[in-house]
Amino acid sequence: MHNHEDIAHRLKITEGHLRGIQRMVADDAYCVDIIRQIQAVQASLNKISSKILEGHLNSCLITAVRGDDPAEREKVLLEIQQVFDTAAKI
Amino acid sequence: MHNHEDIAHRLKITEGHLRGIQRMVADDAYCVDIIRQIQAVQASLNKISSKILEGHLNSCLITAVRGDDPAEREKVLLEIQQVFDTAAKI
Amino acid sequence: MHNHEDIAHRLKITEGHLRGIQRMVADDAYCVDIIRQIQAVQASLNKISSKILEGHLNSCLITAVRGDDPAEREKVLLEIQQVFDTAAKI
Amino acid sequence: MHNHEDIAHRLKITEGHLRGIQRMVADDAYCVDIIRQIQAVQASLNKISSKILEGHLNSCLITAVRGDDPAEREKVLLEIQQVFDTAAKI
Repeated sequence: MHNHEDIAHRLKITEGHLRGIQRMVADDAYCVDIIRQIQAVQASLNKISSKILEGHLNSCLITAVRGDDPAEREKVLLEIQQVFDTAAKI
Repeated sequence: MHNHEDIAHRLKITEGHLRGIQRMVADDAYCVDIIRQIQAVQASLNKISSKILEGHLNSCLITAVRGDDPAEREKVLLEIQQVFDTAAKI
Repeated sequence: MHNHEDIAHRLKITEGHLRGIQRMVADDAYCVDIIRQIQAVQASLNKISSKILEGHLNSCLITAVRGDDPAEREKVLLEIQQVFDTAAKI
Repeated sequence: MHNHEDIAHRLKITEGHLRGIQRMVADDAYCVDIIRQIQAVQASLNKISSKILEGHLNSCLITAVRGDDPAEREKVLLEIQQVFDTAAKI
């Protein structure tokens, strides 16, 4: 990935966020506050997926679409669609 | 779009579904049943978007990525990412 | 529903939006523009579901929770959770 | 929360999953595989939120709705709606 360090950094922060949520649970925090923090983690993960996809589109996808292997191209295009389908479902 | 008729047909069915929901509201149906039907419409719309995206990836995107216009290619790749971002948010 | 007319009006507008999308498909509009309009319809449907849920929480749910029928109360609370689960998935 | 231990356990597992994703990034795994793992984490988080909500509905919400404080009741019902709205958006 071309934006490797940014992704690694964001994942590290998100892991810290998730550990904070575990402390909230241990401290018996208010349920709705915990749910809100979980939703914030999910929004961060959406952002991270988007950035990984950006890198993927601008490298692997371009290579596959310009390459001579139709099976590889179809695989890469199908993966984009699957990732979109799952994003719409979670 | 290469799957034009299928998309048109699915949208027509979804419109009928939405009219059915309006009748439920007029008939004072149970709130939760109405919400469930709205969620079913949203799932149908996800499916339709996925099929349009499939057609797009296998035509416009291939043309743009193989073409000689870097601005057009960047535009098409950015659009994929934006559509993914919005899918993750709704 | 206490906000019956507002819901009916919003559904009517959304149906018009969906018919507009069908015209876009018939006119062979750009795939990504069609997907964006579908996503706008989904956002409207989210808003409508939210308003129906608001009415439901402030009427049926209060009645069920205050009532003497534990089975009815459990049913209503379970429905809220199911609606939430489906919302998280679409 | 009445299902405290189950929630804590699931969060711990999800944290481990997220650390695995960081190793994938460090090992330069395939972008799409990383995105899929992130989406799996998001699905786990949906499940955790749902379980916390279940506990909340069956305790805090019942107490608030049966209680004598209208402001507290309105607050709790509004929170449910907000959590639903955010779930529909991420």
